[in-house]
Amino acid sequence: MRIVKSIRKMQELSGAWRKAGRRIGFVPTMGALHNGHLSLLRRARRDNDRVVISVFVNPTQFGPGEDFNKYPRDLSGDAAFCRKAGADVVFYPGARQMYPSDYKTYVEVWDLSNVLCGNFRPGHFRGVATVLTKLFNIVQPDSAYFGQKDAQQAVIARRMARDLNMPLRIEVMPTVRDKDGLAMSSRNNYLSPQERKRALVLSLALKEAERLISRGRRYSSGIIADLKAFIRRTPGIRVQYLEIVDPDTLRPLVKIKDKVLVVLAVHIGKTRLIDNIVVKV
Amino acid sequence: MRIVKSIRKMQELSGAWRKAGRRIGFVPTMGALHNGHLSLLRRARRDNDRVVISVFVNPTQFGPGEDFNKYPRDLSGDAAFCRKAGADVVFYPGARQMYPSDYKTYVEVWDLSNVLCGNFRPGHFRGVATVLTKLFNIVQPDSAYFGQKDAQQAVIARRMARDLNMPLRIEVMPTVRDKDGLAMSSRNNYLSPQERKRALVLSLALKEAERLISRGRRYSSGIIADLKAFIRRTPGIRVQYLEIVDPDTLRPLVKIKDKVLVVLAVHIGKTRLIDNIVVKV
Repeated sequence: MRIVKSIRKMQELSGAWRKAGRRIGFVPTMGALHNGHLSLLRRARRDNDRVVISVFVNPTQFGPGEDFNKYPRDLSGDAAFCRKAGADVVFYPGARQMYPSDYKTYVEVWDLSNVLCGNFRPGHFRGVATVLTKLFNIVQPDSAYFGQKDAQQAVIARRMARDLNMPLRIEVMPTVRDKDGLAMSSRNNYLSPQERKRALVLSLALKEAERLISRGRRYSSGIIADLKAFIRRTPGIRVQYLEIVDPDTLRPLVKIKDKVLVVLAVHIGKTRLIDNIVVKV
Repeated sequence: MRIVKSIRKMQELSGAWRKAGRRIGFVPTMGALHNGHLSLLRRARRDNDRVVISVFVNPTQFGPGEDFNKYPRDLSGDAAFCRKAGADVVFYPGARQMYPSDYKTYVEVWDLSNVLCGNFRPGHFRGVATVLTKLFNIVQPDSAYFGQKDAQQAVIARRMARDLNMPLRIEVMPTVRDKDGLAMSSRNNYLSPQERKRALVLSLALKEAERLISRGRRYSSGIIADLKAFIRRTPGIRVQYLEIVDPDTLRPLVKIKDKVLVVLAVHIGKTRLIDNIVVKV
């Protein structure tokens, strides 16, 4: 396994692989790797000849006051993780190389970027779409792998790739959870033991949503009110948003039908966590 | 020579060429081809194994009230032109295929897009950057060829390709002029014989700029005033802008040094024409 820090070297390597007819699988990450990333790497390994994982804490997707500086960074731990998972290359570029001082170009997916998380993190998904476009142009993958945990990111990546005719497939893999149900996230590292316990209410609330819908509840407003009351029973949790939306357009649904995405974001102490579930009627 | 209308077919064709190690040269156009385009095609032919020219009047780069509907369209004439120039493929996609009804993704190059032409054509360069990104992802060229006549477009294409790490080279070829000096443009078709004569003042003003600078004039404001007075001697011309800017950043220069770009846009009757010259000190 190689660690490649130069954009040009990565691009040359990928170009050579493509000319040699190798299928390239790509897992874009911000590091602090966990079993969620592992499931992406395994799928990439299974379906491709070459597997590239990028580790880049992307400054343009953090807002002022967000956790850019304290976001967990551990290259040697991540590299060992990737080696074990069978990656061929860890792409680890520097921020100044990715965004030179006169950097000016941004990619935006309208409508999908200013709702849900985007409503509370202005510019976040512009940063995500921009860095993904850059990484795709550098790594030139046949397939790129995303986790369903970041549902909005996955929807935006898929729409962007389709709209801009990017010559690749976006694959979205199921959320990986701890045994007790907590969705894997690098930000779980921030939680105290007490907060870690309280965080279980996210997945429990989503299970409750599934239960309510399976019992025939069909109006989002009532379900959302019940779920918020359910969450309120746990102390120290602040709901940022909880919505029931169309899984492709992310538009709020008044009435449940076909397939819906139940999404929520909460603050536990200083930590912001998100989770979601797709429910089919 | 083939005419390819399907995005997927074009993408497959290019993918197969790249796998076979063929160098692809690409000339993006809106059709109504003239000798300016011919110089791009010839260079592309010289430097590549395969030459693709796109003919697509891109709706997202026209503003309300602009000439989208009357922009000259002549596929059979253009196809004959391309065949003679040795193109391998004319890529001719439909607008609905390029922009499906739920299209949402745009590429923007900040600062460079809202000055000069962009100041008078809001959204224009966002449309240009977006369609170029799409076309580059579809055609997957090694090199793409632009004319210096559209100087701002060339600067934006180059910056966008650099910023987004697109795996290709942007080549900018000199403006091709009629014998009398008028820069080749599809919009010259709109001019009446009288307007066609008046339009000579664009290139004459640029020559005058060159002369003034070669004589030692160094302050932009004085030169610009003299050039506007020079143009005013021709009746029926309205200057939209006339500026002396840095050729890379497009920022106005108070004082001339090194290398400057003199750019202007005028209206002659209902027709808007642009021209420019790079002057080295």
